[in-house]
Amino acid sequence: MSQDNHQVRLAARPSGLPRESDWELSSEPVPVPGHGEFVVAVEYVAIDPAMRRWIAPTAFGEPVAIGAVMEASAIGHVTASEHPGFAVGQHVSGGFGVQEFARSDGTGTTKLDPLLAPLTAYLGALGIPGLTAYFGVLEIGRPRNGETVVVSGAAGGVGSIAGQIARITGCRVIGIAGGPEKCRWIVEDLGFHGAIDYKAEDVAGSLRELTPDGIDVFVDNVGGDILDAVLANLARGARVVLSGGVSQYNADETRGPSNYLQLIRARASMAGFITPDYEDRYPQARAEIAGWLRDGRLISREQIIEGGVRAFPAALVKLFAGENIGKLILATAPEGD
Amino acid sequence: MSQDNHQVRLAARPSGLPRESDWELSSEPVPVPGHGEFVVAVEYVAIDPAMRRWIAPTAFGEPVAIGAVMEASAIGHVTASEHPGFAVGQHVSGGFGVQEFARSDGTGTTKLDPLLAPLTAYLGALGIPGLTAYFGVLEIGRPRNGETVVVSGAAGGVGSIAGQIARITGCRVIGIAGGPEKCRWIVEDLGFHGAIDYKAEDVAGSLRELTPDGIDVFVDNVGGDILDAVLANLARGARVVLSGGVSQYNADETRGPSNYLQLIRARASMAGFITPDYEDRYPQARAEIAGWLRDGRLISREQIIEGGVRAFPAALVKLFAGENIGKLILATAPEGD
Repeated sequence: MSQDNHQVRLAARPSGLPRESDWELSSEPVPVPGHGEFVVAVEYVAIDPAMRRWIAPTAFGEPVAIGAVMEASAIGHVTASEHPGFAVGQHVSGGFGVQEFARSDGTGTTKLDPLLAPLTAYLGALGIPGLTAYFGVLEIGRPRNGETVVVSGAAGGVGSIAGQIARITGCRVIGIAGGPEKCRWIVEDLGFHGAIDYKAEDVAGSLRELTPDGIDVFVDNVGGDILDAVLANLARGARVVLSGGVSQYNADETRGPSNYLQLIRARASMAGFITPDYEDRYPQARAEIAGWLRDGRLISREQIIEGGVRAFPAALVKLFAGENIGKLILATAPEGD
Repeated sequence: MSQDNHQVRLAARPSGLPRESDWELSSEPVPVPGHGEFVVAVEYVAIDPAMRRWIAPTAFGEPVAIGAVMEASAIGHVTASEHPGFAVGQHVSGGFGVQEFARSDGTGTTKLDPLLAPLTAYLGALGIPGLTAYFGVLEIGRPRNGETVVVSGAAGGVGSIAGQIARITGCRVIGIAGGPEKCRWIVEDLGFHGAIDYKAEDVAGSLRELTPDGIDVFVDNVGGDILDAVLANLARGARVVLSGGVSQYNADETRGPSNYLQLIRARASMAGFITPDYEDRYPQARAEIAGWLRDGRLISREQIIEGGVRAFPAALVKLFAGENIGKLILATAPEGD
């Protein structure tokens, strides 16, 4: 049986919103592991807002090269191995990219325990989104019991987990999301104490109503007008956690927060972080998150798109249209030849 | 002998750059102290960039009311007292406003020691500018020996002190200022290790040259393009100290730092603070600053404008034209009737 490895490669650097034509399909033989390597059949690929940053010429670090396989967090299982630490059948997660098979030497690869949680949770609450929420809230935001925490992109992969972790910490949590369905979900299912529908409400006005004593911690996944509205309502000593800025990723020119001098009035800080800096603490964080998942205090929702790797560009467009609830994931079961 | 108290009152809220017509002169009898009060003859008034914020409708707290005496830090001496703690002749500093005589109950008033330093230093290195630099650098910036510190508005009241304190802490200090005279002064007289003339140089390019390993601490008094240029060159773990944003004070709409997402890449933070929050530590800070002044490691330069209170509006316009070197101060010796 011969089988091809279908891949999605970057074809052009988008200006503004990415289009499907910014990627192209390729195929090559399924790789064979060299000494100290193994091959993974990729089952699921995470569709991340940060992907827009990874392909930008002003990327943090080198952007994905034109013609290279699109970078992505993914999960799969080992199909062939010349690596003593990874046996065939082992479930793993790592930066395998948008392709059906990936060769790896184990760098940045995590072995998964399918008994701890459903596999797709390793791209959600137990993956980079959950870890980003965990360290963003607990290490950068450091909310104290009873404080008011606001989360933007609250129905997304990071925001939905961040808000729940803040709630578990004993905070009052308000989420900002787009549309009544997302707002209903974060309040009724995830236990947020309030929601603001930025598509239908005046965010600044609703914040003043819902957070009359000001906002102690803001986990921002969005930027733009929402960040400005929150800055105007910070409590003294507030911490703004820059988790992302999805409203700006597709903009040709980033708009900075015009209310940034409110940080002076509020004696507040705004800080960025990179999740992999905490890699040595992933096992402890995953164990704690898995405990919350098991006892039902934390809900991880993954929205899975079928269609294989060829559906990747459409999935990313869907993400930026804000149509997903929870973590958006692409199922990439290999196609037949 | 009868004497009037000449005062400067806010007449209009400026839009954009303040004009002299935004204030008007008034006069009233010199106040008489009530029980527990004293009267100060105001000798010097600080001309502060923050004054633009104090009169703005979006001020932090209540703005100066139309018709009210313009707020200002000032120094003077007690001329009459019904207060057991303040004797006639005592030199004091406080928020006495732009007027020749002020009545006070001692709240927010500091007794000055003319032997410790020249009186005007109490509006410079030993006053709010010096204390702002001290706490901004040491408490918010927290530079470590050998780190690279950049200061904007480096020839101004706060910036000139902030850069010198960073130098005393053992840091490499680069100042950004406007014009060759200011740049020469901060390097040759104040001991900065380098200067960038933002009026003549490409700030981003010069920063890359002068801070090849990135910027660890940035004390920003300016905002705007300069803040963006620095954000693009932050070292990992950098701290941006928001001391002010003078480039934005006269703007009808504040422009936020479009490079704010660089805080993520650099795992950096940007924080604001209010100097009076540290009031209980002023004596210790003043003693340390006075020690540096005495042993010549710190230079406090005050540029004194004569002309009495009536020269206040012109002095503020001069400040915003960036014409001052060091702390701008207005001498307000009472005029004869």
